[in-house]
Amino acid sequence: MGDDAAVLAGGLLFCTDVLTEGVHFDLRWSTPADVGWKALAVNLSDVAAMGGMPRAAVCGVVLGAGRKGEADELAAGLMAAALELGCPLVGGDTVVGAALTVTVAVIGDSPDGGAVLRSGARPGDSIFVTGPLGGSRAALGALRRGEAADPVALARLQRPVPRVVEGRMAAGAGASAMIDLSDGLSSDLAHICRASGVGARLEASAVPLGPGAGVEDALSGGDDYELCFTAADPERVAEAFAAAGLHLPAPIGTVIPGDEVFLSTPRGGTWPLAPSGWEHTVA
Amino acid sequence: MGDDAAVLAGGLLFCTDVLTEGVHFDLRWSTPADVGWKALAVNLSDVAAMGGMPRAAVCGVVLGAGRKGEADELAAGLMAAALELGCPLVGGDTVVGAALTVTVAVIGDSPDGGAVLRSGARPGDSIFVTGPLGGSRAALGALRRGEAADPVALARLQRPVPRVVEGRMAAGAGASAMIDLSDGLSSDLAHICRASGVGARLEASAVPLGPGAGVEDALSGGDDYELCFTAADPERVAEAFAAAGLHLPAPIGTVIPGDEVFLSTPRGGTWPLAPSGWEHTVA
Repeated sequence: MGDDAAVLAGGLLFCTDVLTEGVHFDLRWSTPADVGWKALAVNLSDVAAMGGMPRAAVCGVVLGAGRKGEADELAAGLMAAALELGCPLVGGDTVVGAALTVTVAVIGDSPDGGAVLRSGARPGDSIFVTGPLGGSRAALGALRRGEAADPVALARLQRPVPRVVEGRMAAGAGASAMIDLSDGLSSDLAHICRASGVGARLEASAVPLGPGAGVEDALSGGDDYELCFTAADPERVAEAFAAAGLHLPAPIGTVIPGDEVFLSTPRGGTWPLAPSGWEHTVA
Repeated sequence: MGDDAAVLAGGLLFCTDVLTEGVHFDLRWSTPADVGWKALAVNLSDVAAMGGMPRAAVCGVVLGAGRKGEADELAAGLMAAALELGCPLVGGDTVVGAALTVTVAVIGDSPDGGAVLRSGARPGDSIFVTGPLGGSRAALGALRRGEAADPVALARLQRPVPRVVEGRMAAGAGASAMIDLSDGLSSDLAHICRASGVGARLEASAVPLGPGAGVEDALSGGDDYELCFTAADPERVAEAFAAAGLHLPAPIGTVIPGDEVFLSTPRGGTWPLAPSGWEHTVA
């Protein structure tokens, strides 16, 4: 408990995430197929955050009453994700109820060196993120204002691609702690700090920004599904990712003693950063 | 797909079941704690129907808006089932949404001889059930009429006990096909017949009846969570269960060639039995 996935005897990973209408998605902006895709993707992201490899998924679906027609589209999105993200869907259960709800559970295998937990960060470790942040929040903001959203950011919001390869690579390169950025950097990094008994200092100018996103989007916006990890040897991380032809993860700060997260700004100020969670009113 | 649980490489079993308010339970007759218990129990019943041994469960919960207070009671029922039924709950996700919905996923291990599928029944096999049927339907009928329900039957409806030990014993005694009776004998036996490419002849007088139940309850009532299995050697089955000190499963009929299920009545008539499914408007 407390990590993105449970680690069972033998290293088997096991996790579940629920997506429900009006909380995690809005059918004005996402199709039922998008919802199906995302329901699997967010679970694979949990396995990725352990450095693991997904093995199989099952899916429980509640269809809204009078809306059975969404079943085929939802299934198509689930199957597309299963194929493209490489995790077979092996079973499921579908009922008709009050609101569209999709609950996926995934099992996976730990990396050879053991699953990467949230609790292993140590003072002096470098903090990395695997890609640009805040794009989902910026896209959602645009949609809510009735404006056009950046298409790349919108695609990421509707059909996130879990960073499975990057998670395995980070594990192999000695990641000491890892989490997926589903709630937002400030709150998810706070989870690592709490679990590890450490603090952190972030360099605001080093945080990579998604399309249309500002620093505030990157810090408190959720739904990006990049990974945040800590590692004692930043050169080893860079070499491993480069050798595999992957985008280099961005070093965004350092683990420090204590229990607070500080944000250093380009103008030289350093401020305590409160975990401002993802509000869960999403595409 | 098509069995109670998926069988993965290495014999790992994986399944999921959704319980949602107004479809699978009615909070007039079941407490949130009962719902939590049942959500785990029905998944363990799926593993039992493969002859398997549950290893771990995860749970996704949607709480009804304005009813967060049900969370603690639901969790208590889940934890009670996890402890008493011997399957640790290792992770979960809880959100607030439209209606109380509990989706559990369970992994388990196949028996040594491999998981028992629905597709292995052969003409000449005996058909068994592990216990009395129809009690849940009878209890529910009483509740709906505003009458008192039999307390044993009501307990079974609210807090079913999956037949894990019996399922393993049946697998060890050579069960050729198995299913759990969640929808009702007539429809669940039809699933075995369809998957196996066989028919069946049931002896109405041999079907054991739960408290307050008639034959019609036993044939078409769901939610009993006993197991139905077929086996070529009925004496081996009886000896194995007796040696383990378990209640003997009741032989209720025979697998026959063809694709129809017939019901023989005590007065000598034999009638085709249509699969009359469980209506899913339950306690």
